[in-house]
Amino acid sequence: MIKSIEWSENKLTIIDQTEIPRNLIYLELNTIQQVFEAIQKLRVRGAPAIGVAAAFGLYLGVRGRSFENRQSFLSEAKSLADYLASARPTAVNLRWALQFINEKLQKTQGELPELIRKVLEIAIDIKNDDQKRCDLMGSAGAELIQPGMRILTHCNTGALATAGIGTALGVIYTAHRQNKKLQVFVDETRPLLQGARLNMWELEQAGIPATLISDNMAAYAMQRGMIDLVIVGADRIAANGDTANKIGTYNLAVNAQYHGIPFYVAAPLSTFDFSIKSGEQIPIEERNCEEITRIWGKLPITVENASCWNPAFDVTPAGLITGIITEAGIADHPFEDSLTRLKLNSQVHKNHKELIQ
Amino acid sequence: MIKSIEWSENKLTIIDQTEIPRNLIYLELNTIQQVFEAIQKLRVRGAPAIGVAAAFGLYLGVRGRSFENRQSFLSEAKSLADYLASARPTAVNLRWALQFINEKLQKTQGELPELIRKVLEIAIDIKNDDQKRCDLMGSAGAELIQPGMRILTHCNTGALATAGIGTALGVIYTAHRQNKKLQVFVDETRPLLQGARLNMWELEQAGIPATLISDNMAAYAMQRGMIDLVIVGADRIAANGDTANKIGTYNLAVNAQYHGIPFYVAAPLSTFDFSIKSGEQIPIEERNCEEITRIWGKLPITVENASCWNPAFDVTPAGLITGIITEAGIADHPFEDSLTRLKLNSQVHKNHKELIQ
Repeated sequence: MIKSIEWSENKLTIIDQTEIPRNLIYLELNTIQQVFEAIQKLRVRGAPAIGVAAAFGLYLGVRGRSFENRQSFLSEAKSLADYLASARPTAVNLRWALQFINEKLQKTQGELPELIRKVLEIAIDIKNDDQKRCDLMGSAGAELIQPGMRILTHCNTGALATAGIGTALGVIYTAHRQNKKLQVFVDETRPLLQGARLNMWELEQAGIPATLISDNMAAYAMQRGMIDLVIVGADRIAANGDTANKIGTYNLAVNAQYHGIPFYVAAPLSTFDFSIKSGEQIPIEERNCEEITRIWGKLPITVENASCWNPAFDVTPAGLITGIITEAGIADHPFEDSLTRLKLNSQVHKNHKELIQ
Repeated sequence: MIKSIEWSENKLTIIDQTEIPRNLIYLELNTIQQVFEAIQKLRVRGAPAIGVAAAFGLYLGVRGRSFENRQSFLSEAKSLADYLASARPTAVNLRWALQFINEKLQKTQGELPELIRKVLEIAIDIKNDDQKRCDLMGSAGAELIQPGMRILTHCNTGALATAGIGTALGVIYTAHRQNKKLQVFVDETRPLLQGARLNMWELEQAGIPATLISDNMAAYAMQRGMIDLVIVGADRIAANGDTANKIGTYNLAVNAQYHGIPFYVAAPLSTFDFSIKSGEQIPIEERNCEEITRIWGKLPITVENASCWNPAFDVTPAGLITGIITEAGIADHPFEDSLTRLKLNSQVHKNHKELIQ
């Protein structure tokens, strides 16, 4: 399995996802500014992966620097975290990872440079933890999958989107390893074509049969009885289960319900924002019009100076979601109760349990 | 208003729609083979426009040739019509126009070369008739439109798709001329991007505010209350109202119903295939995978040799359609009865009445 994000020899190495599938380019990131740019330009993307990248980014922002005292260090760590968090407003894992580090630092005894070293330790913990969560989600979700199922997915949620095997795609990988002989239908995922570029590339590497479709074909595939199950990832989930995910997810959820097809979200518990009651409170990032009007900033597809609307995410109400696959098990309706139980679930490994508290 | 298809000085001139909006190129077509190629390669597209183009194509196939007798001419005209009809299997107007000419020829007295001249006369009649039908559809449909409405449309159904002002877009043009201050949301219409390329270009020329979105954003726009009405065109409509139209139409119809938004189809009566009872009998053209994997055959967006599914159309069941706007008025449920009444509607001008019988 490809590693989209690695820490070794004191530097962060990521796959530049804007170059996939044309080129497999590994980028070395040595500064917090480089990490910020990589997150903002989607070189590293996928809610869990950007959380991991940001954690290392914070370390790159403080390492090798001198601070007057513990307090000035903590204050600087906080402001660097705010800077990184501003790179993508919707993804909660980004904020979660940074907040987690800052809270840990507050509680950590000791002075510099131990505190600086501690940032790196926590970043590595978050990365390892993400891998474990992916494996647990994969196992939990694979139980839903019957042999021969034809599964529709949207946007990339695999090894490229996480430090592990992925969320929604991780479930597919796990079922494939169980010899379930799946067929995956891949929404191309306009405007940035993460499905066409990244899922098709990952699935080819894994030897899983994949069929690419335009996003507007999914409904017709459902009408024709070609889809048994939909699984997608998530960028932020409210306490009631309302889910922000890549634009086009809501469209699939409406269609899945209309056609009586189960619709699952796969996401680690760090994707949940229990501080907000419903999806109405999730801010939706609206990105540059050029993402629509020019394919990858290159090929113009419409008149010059076209007006566009380019929301990067949409919100799927909990009522359209059959279940939410987490590392602690599958949450079902009502999600609020179910999630409370899962958070306490003993299957969750110790390190992870500490992280989600 | 732009003219996408013209007959003058004994030749057919079309706008090469594959070049819009980058270049406005007029192509002269002098042979039936050139017309076949133009239809198949979508240089001329839109159900009514390809019906008109095919009629002139048939004339180009017989003009200047000598035939042994009336019978050999009629037989050759029939086989040239079959050749042209094979260029696009789903659009019924194509078949309708060719069949209409052949039936007229059977009934026409006289010998060659009068018969050959007659083919041209009928082709010109079909073209003029299409223009009139567009105007009538525009007037009928504009009555549905309230000032300030925000209208979503899919694929191109305007001046480029017909010999007149268009079908669904013709309704929008007519309402705009009535000073209704519309806002149009334009689905980009993957894979061939007719919305981004053609609608945005036509609407800009007409000075109508237009906002481009990816196809997968329409559902979210509906959820946010940004859409008041959906109007689309049609490539073939069964007797019960089931409608084949550009892939993605069905997706919109499901979402429109879910959000309680009226969903209208605009199409001339020549789009109806009363010989088939329901949409199940409509053959759906599946096109080359490369239309998905490479934007306009140029920019590859996925792995090499990706598997795809590329249906060019889908079928929207009549139950999801609020009404069908025709040149004879708006058909409502049950469509079968309503259409029978409309076919006899006295508003239909004489020439047209003859054509639809």
